[in-house]
Amino acid sequence: MSKTTEQKFMDLLKEQSAYGEAIGLMAWDMRTKAPRKGIEGRSEVIGVMSQKVHEIQTSDEMRGYIDKLKNKAQDPILKRAVEEAEETYDKTAKIPANEYRAYVTLQTQAESMWGEAKSNNDFESFRPYLEKLVEYNRKFADYWGYGDHRYDALLNNYEPGVTVEVLDKVFPKVRKALTDLLKQIKEAPNQPDPTVLQGHFSKERQAEFSEVILERMGYDFEAGRLDETVHPFAIGLNTNDVRVTTKYDEKDFRTAVFGTIHEGGHALYEQNIDPKLAFTPLADGTSMGIHESQSLFWENFIARSEGFWRNHYELFKNYAPGHFQNLSLEKFYPAVNEVKPSLIRIEADELTYCLHIMVRYELEKALIAGEIEVKDLPELWNQKMEDYLGTTPENDSEGVLQDIHWSGGDFGYFPSYALGYMYAAQLNSKMREEIDVDRSIEEGDFHKIKEWLTENVHQYGKMKKPLQILNDITGEGLNPDHLIDYLTNKYKKIYQF
Amino acid sequence: MSKTTEQKFMDLLKEQSAYGEAIGLMAWDMRTKAPRKGIEGRSEVIGVMSQKVHEIQTSDEMRGYIDKLKNKAQDPILKRAVEEAEETYDKTAKIPANEYRAYVTLQTQAESMWGEAKSNNDFESFRPYLEKLVEYNRKFADYWGYGDHRYDALLNNYEPGVTVEVLDKVFPKVRKALTDLLKQIKEAPNQPDPTVLQGHFSKERQAEFSEVILERMGYDFEAGRLDETVHPFAIGLNTNDVRVTTKYDEKDFRTAVFGTIHEGGHALYEQNIDPKLAFTPLADGTSMGIHESQSLFWENFIARSEGFWRNHYELFKNYAPGHFQNLSLEKFYPAVNEVKPSLIRIEADELTYCLHIMVRYELEKALIAGEIEVKDLPELWNQKMEDYLGTTPENDSEGVLQDIHWSGGDFGYFPSYALGYMYAAQLNSKMREEIDVDRSIEEGDFHKIKEWLTENVHQYGKMKKPLQILNDITGEGLNPDHLIDYLTNKYKKIYQF
Repeated sequence: MSKTTEQKFMDLLKEQSAYGEAIGLMAWDMRTKAPRKGIEGRSEVIGVMSQKVHEIQTSDEMRGYIDKLKNKAQDPILKRAVEEAEETYDKTAKIPANEYRAYVTLQTQAESMWGEAKSNNDFESFRPYLEKLVEYNRKFADYWGYGDHRYDALLNNYEPGVTVEVLDKVFPKVRKALTDLLKQIKEAPNQPDPTVLQGHFSKERQAEFSEVILERMGYDFEAGRLDETVHPFAIGLNTNDVRVTTKYDEKDFRTAVFGTIHEGGHALYEQNIDPKLAFTPLADGTSMGIHESQSLFWENFIARSEGFWRNHYELFKNYAPGHFQNLSLEKFYPAVNEVKPSLIRIEADELTYCLHIMVRYELEKALIAGEIEVKDLPELWNQKMEDYLGTTPENDSEGVLQDIHWSGGDFGYFPSYALGYMYAAQLNSKMREEIDVDRSIEEGDFHKIKEWLTENVHQYGKMKKPLQILNDITGEGLNPDHLIDYLTNKYKKIYQF
Repeated sequence: MSKTTEQKFMDLLKEQSAYGEAIGLMAWDMRTKAPRKGIEGRSEVIGVMSQKVHEIQTSDEMRGYIDKLKNKAQDPILKRAVEEAEETYDKTAKIPANEYRAYVTLQTQAESMWGEAKSNNDFESFRPYLEKLVEYNRKFADYWGYGDHRYDALLNNYEPGVTVEVLDKVFPKVRKALTDLLKQIKEAPNQPDPTVLQGHFSKERQAEFSEVILERMGYDFEAGRLDETVHPFAIGLNTNDVRVTTKYDEKDFRTAVFGTIHEGGHALYEQNIDPKLAFTPLADGTSMGIHESQSLFWENFIARSEGFWRNHYELFKNYAPGHFQNLSLEKFYPAVNEVKPSLIRIEADELTYCLHIMVRYELEKALIAGEIEVKDLPELWNQKMEDYLGTTPENDSEGVLQDIHWSGGDFGYFPSYALGYMYAAQLNSKMREEIDVDRSIEEGDFHKIKEWLTENVHQYGKMKKPLQILNDITGEGLNPDHLIDYLTNKYKKIYQF
């Protein structure tokens, strides 16, 4: 019995997934467990495997299956798998092989140069690399094609369906609302005191509390594990092996606790993708933004809510050191929700985070469009930071050089973070129409919340595009009002203005 | 510039190594860290990768390079790599593809059936699978070809160059000497008292002591790590990432301490292979027996020696619980060297271990030759256990069903264990002619010992065959007298006969 074209196509996708899973495990291992000296060899192995994935995605064999199955596949999974394979094929095949190779080499060099430039506070040494990266990305965008904006072609890599037109309708409104809110917060009478949280909190006890919360969220430890890393992440190796890492700061429990819950939100997404999608490229989050909506929903809408701490503060005290024992919830809750404009994105609070994204979005959009050039970046960065956050970097290391993304050529990625906030707020509004979220939070029973997310988001993997998921759930497109209303209400209550 | 045939060949070997490294990491992960539910998916990925290795090894591309480079390669590494690739090609290509596939399926089924049969003490349920495995191995041996004995073709998979003729010259002599020695030991006046070792010894403290010893041996923790598993092992992912696992028994520290040192010996071998062999099939131990010689040398000739404990007993006491504090070295040392015939190979002491191997060797040799059949095994097993060890299994679970090897079709493997003992003893004799081993042991400075092993054994990887390594070092072939003399002297002193 010879195999059908469908079977052969699915076998090829399975092979591609196998490489992906191996690469994923090697990456996890390198960041958690691998001995230092073995990393060089491991990187070569990852290089060989990545090359294999690229070969499969752009192979004549793959093209053949796509052509035979396109518009003919009846089974919905097969149909979407063919679409996904074709998108990848087209995206990859449109770039000439020699340019792709040169670009991969450039990425590696640029990331390394960026690290040095950041350490030395020396933007000029990084500038030529960044200029080349921008040049390539402009060219690639032209190869891929776009409607109104060249930047749309890049956005499409991270948030398919979202365009400059969509973003420019909502981002300015969000920016305006958040900067206004920030002004009110600064002048508000009731300022939280975060110093009440200070003091030593052992790593072991933080880990124990984090694990309890992960379990309550519905994270399945039989299909995952929690480890320590310098930069926390969640990684889905397969739907039954989705691992979380976190970082412990013994002087500030917020890093680990909220960080673990954030990564746990990502992990819940991947643990609950329909098993039928296993071993296809569809067994993954549908976009960076939707993925981020899941982590932010748990981190902010659940774990930074007043109800959560009303229920969990006693539990928390079982793990927390002495100075929390006499600290009232009335002081604790505002303290973990302090708003404080800072220079560094990854340290930003729930409110100012999106303003960091606005700075980056506006700059990279203009860069790709050719309206500004790389040399203009440091000054424009500082100006926008002053305008939106009221704070100016003293040097480029804490300014334009702070993020790794551009050094890897990842233009079009940043907006996903802000979209994640907006999606999360929209899901939150809808969920509250359908289930009693506050009661679940107060009772510490997140089962219904997790089920709702699985039913509406997780299970689909990449079967639906991000805006389709959003629309199917909420009946509307991207709408920033939910986020603005949520933040306004929350901070009015905390800061009492 | 197009690549030369040499470069293309080395690239293909590198690709093969890359799969090997990925498979190795996945295997390590499954046994140490992987969440239970993810294992099924992981096994499929390992299956895909193993298939790739098989495809490369038997590809027309590989055959083409071998034919072009054979007898032409000047560089010694290239020359050996071509030989190794050809051996693998021939071995694999001689088995018809359909038979190979059926055999792989049978192996999986048989391993699973063996597990059940062992639990249920039911040899009959496993018998048909074992019969088929024997049948395939007879057939494969015929495909591969051999001189005097069909079993030689199987031995060659684990111990190239060692044949029945070689073994039958030495094994009976070893068996006779050891059974005689065992008789004298049983009747000796001075019997060690192992009960003095009993008592709780925490896992954490055992791990700390084991790590100190590993470091003293010269194990590089920057190119490896120590983890806990049910079945201890060492695995070389690349020469800069060679991991050790161990098992802790809080009632008996010997399991972890000697187990870790044993695996550490394996690991030292792979950490010290010449880096020039990286990403070729030569970056591996040259045979199972030579590998075992390294682990046994450290475990027995070093760590079970009187000198070792004269130097390390005070250090050991820093980690050991209270009941060791007043225990004299004069009672401790004999206790960790007690000889006690038992039914289970993996629990055997330094002296009786080889007798367990004799039982297995004689049976599998006769099986493959067709002189006995699978149905005869249980009775013959029990008879030989009685003859050589003076102890008879009460049931097949602790008799013929105890080892996993045959259920995976691994016939010809067992002799490597006994060869490892003999090789180790021969290396030990030679090393003592060249360096002051006792002084190194007593001073706890193993640097010279490790250097000697690296210079004479480790660095070569698969560049030399096992008997060539032995001959280059000692100037003789396999010679059991070194082991017999060593054991006789050691136990005469301990048991005072």
